[in-house]
Amino acid sequence: METDGGAGNVVRNKKLMLKDYIKGSPKESDLHLTTESIELKVPQGSNAVLVKVLYLSIDPYQYIRSTKIEKPGYFSSYSPGSVMASYGVGRVLESGHPDFKKGDLVWGTTGWEEYSLITEPETLFKIQHSDVPLSYYLGVLGMPGLTAYVGFYAFCAAKKGETVFISSAFGAVGQLVGQLAKLTGCYVVGSAGSQEKVDLLKNKLGFDEAFNYKAEKNLDDTLKRHFPGGIDICFDNVGGKMLDAVLLNMKLNGRIAHCGMISQYTLDEPEGIKNMMNIIYKRLRLEGFVVTDYFHLFPKFLDFMLPCIREGKIVYMEDISEALESCPAALVGLFNSSNLGKKVVIVARE
Amino acid sequence: METDGGAGNVVRNKKLMLKDYIKGSPKESDLHLTTESIELKVPQGSNAVLVKVLYLSIDPYQYIRSTKIEKPGYFSSYSPGSVMASYGVGRVLESGHPDFKKGDLVWGTTGWEEYSLITEPETLFKIQHSDVPLSYYLGVLGMPGLTAYVGFYAFCAAKKGETVFISSAFGAVGQLVGQLAKLTGCYVVGSAGSQEKVDLLKNKLGFDEAFNYKAEKNLDDTLKRHFPGGIDICFDNVGGKMLDAVLLNMKLNGRIAHCGMISQYTLDEPEGIKNMMNIIYKRLRLEGFVVTDYFHLFPKFLDFMLPCIREGKIVYMEDISEALESCPAALVGLFNSSNLGKKVVIVARE
Repeated sequence: METDGGAGNVVRNKKLMLKDYIKGSPKESDLHLTTESIELKVPQGSNAVLVKVLYLSIDPYQYIRSTKIEKPGYFSSYSPGSVMASYGVGRVLESGHPDFKKGDLVWGTTGWEEYSLITEPETLFKIQHSDVPLSYYLGVLGMPGLTAYVGFYAFCAAKKGETVFISSAFGAVGQLVGQLAKLTGCYVVGSAGSQEKVDLLKNKLGFDEAFNYKAEKNLDDTLKRHFPGGIDICFDNVGGKMLDAVLLNMKLNGRIAHCGMISQYTLDEPEGIKNMMNIIYKRLRLEGFVVTDYFHLFPKFLDFMLPCIREGKIVYMEDISEALESCPAALVGLFNSSNLGKKVVIVARE
Repeated sequence: METDGGAGNVVRNKKLMLKDYIKGSPKESDLHLTTESIELKVPQGSNAVLVKVLYLSIDPYQYIRSTKIEKPGYFSSYSPGSVMASYGVGRVLESGHPDFKKGDLVWGTTGWEEYSLITEPETLFKIQHSDVPLSYYLGVLGMPGLTAYVGFYAFCAAKKGETVFISSAFGAVGQLVGQLAKLTGCYVVGSAGSQEKVDLLKNKLGFDEAFNYKAEKNLDDTLKRHFPGGIDICFDNVGGKMLDAVLLNMKLNGRIAHCGMISQYTLDEPEGIKNMMNIIYKRLRLEGFVVTDYFHLFPKFLDFMLPCIREGKIVYMEDISEALESCPAALVGLFNSSNLGKKVVIVARE
């Protein structure tokens, strides 16, 4: 541990700051690295928890929160000039909260920095099972995993034999939804942004079919080719043109679970969805959900997912970068399909 | 009954034919009147029912079926050159079906003509209660009434105290949804296309508030004015810009029942809906339904609605025209807000 000129337990703390609200596609230069001193203790009398950050999660919502949100709804903007934040895994260095003690491994919302003082420790989860990779708590065993679990079981409510389409299927959530759908006995097709991902979806994750949306001229035709009888369930992570094509290809009484609309986030104005009449003609149900409403299900979810991982029923693909400095490139990569699986940054190896 | 030169039971039968698929806004000249002879008997051995048409219903779906539907889904096109059709009330003149006998009053799908041979009499309902106006079986006691009943109770599932917005609120369905919402104890606001309708919604139908969408500059601002705390439930009959404004103003966990999108039917290309991200942020449920899926609930619905009418809990406003010849103008009127309530045409007074 680097100390700071004899001031006792004071160290240098690198952190990534948001320069200003991001407009359009994110660029690495939208963030800047700074170094501050931090005393490795929690303020006296507070219930805060100080963690050493080990892993950081890179997710599309961090882009949304980096833009200027005029009408705060579910998301509020990060303040320009402040440190970025995301889900992270860390080791507790000091704790003012009775649920956490020095040495505990935790996951929860942390800063994009080496040492993070968590002032709302009720948002932290203690990591109890160390037989799986720690980074999994940012993916298959964390927020994306719970998103897939809740979205698929509560909202899609798929039955054996139904047809399922997953957009952004190689993303942190999509790859799990596809595997859950296969476990249920569904026919599963996913879309992704490269041939490499398409091959992995089919050969590694067990999807029945997959396609590279960038190589398709007409998404309506593409979906008709893969679903000649139509789609029962769509787990939509993309929105925009993909959603419009999906609406044309849903079956009667189909369900669309809206988890994200990544194709729209970087646009000045969202694309208009034109095929809404299909909601009526086909008696469709569209439903949006936000995983934080379901964090109370986390223990139940772990009971389900941990055995699936241990028994190899669920596999999980991560794209891991080294060092805090790689976070900006990782965020940019989410929007150009360059990440190959759930994007995680290793900040420290303890 | 006019007879046809001694040919026994043969009469002249005026009918309205669709000239060609309608494009854009409907015009009276899209239909033409013709007269044919008809023998007032059902074909030997058939189970058809011959009715004298008394009332015809004019509904937006008749426009949809008059356009060229490239990809038949719920609706199929009327054939150019064939007689128009809609729900109608008639008196049975002769019947080959055991459920119907001469003299019965029925409602169901009939031609836009004076005498209609119903070859699928299983789609007819016998009218049992003659203490209410016969035309009500085309409105509050017929397809629109069942639509409002199913849509409001099954899809909106409103609770006392919730806020409800109804677009096209003075239409055949909307005026009933608003009254059902008031019976449930909701705060109810409707939109309509004229000040006269707005006044009637508030003063005659008991809506808490109403507005003339044609007089509003910005529908988002309008909805914010009427729903400062947001909308729990939207019963949408309009789609397009109105739906986009609704999405901006829904509350968390709001529900939108999609019944129709009349603003879109006459457009070459539908307006794009841009505020879809609100489905996720606000955890909205959007659901489309088609009333014909619920015709099995008709007896239960009658048990509910007949007492409401008799006790004055539900009032119903009709806009009635005389003579088959007025049907084309009535259809056109649906799309320029000129009808003042459920549009019905009296073809004959028996």
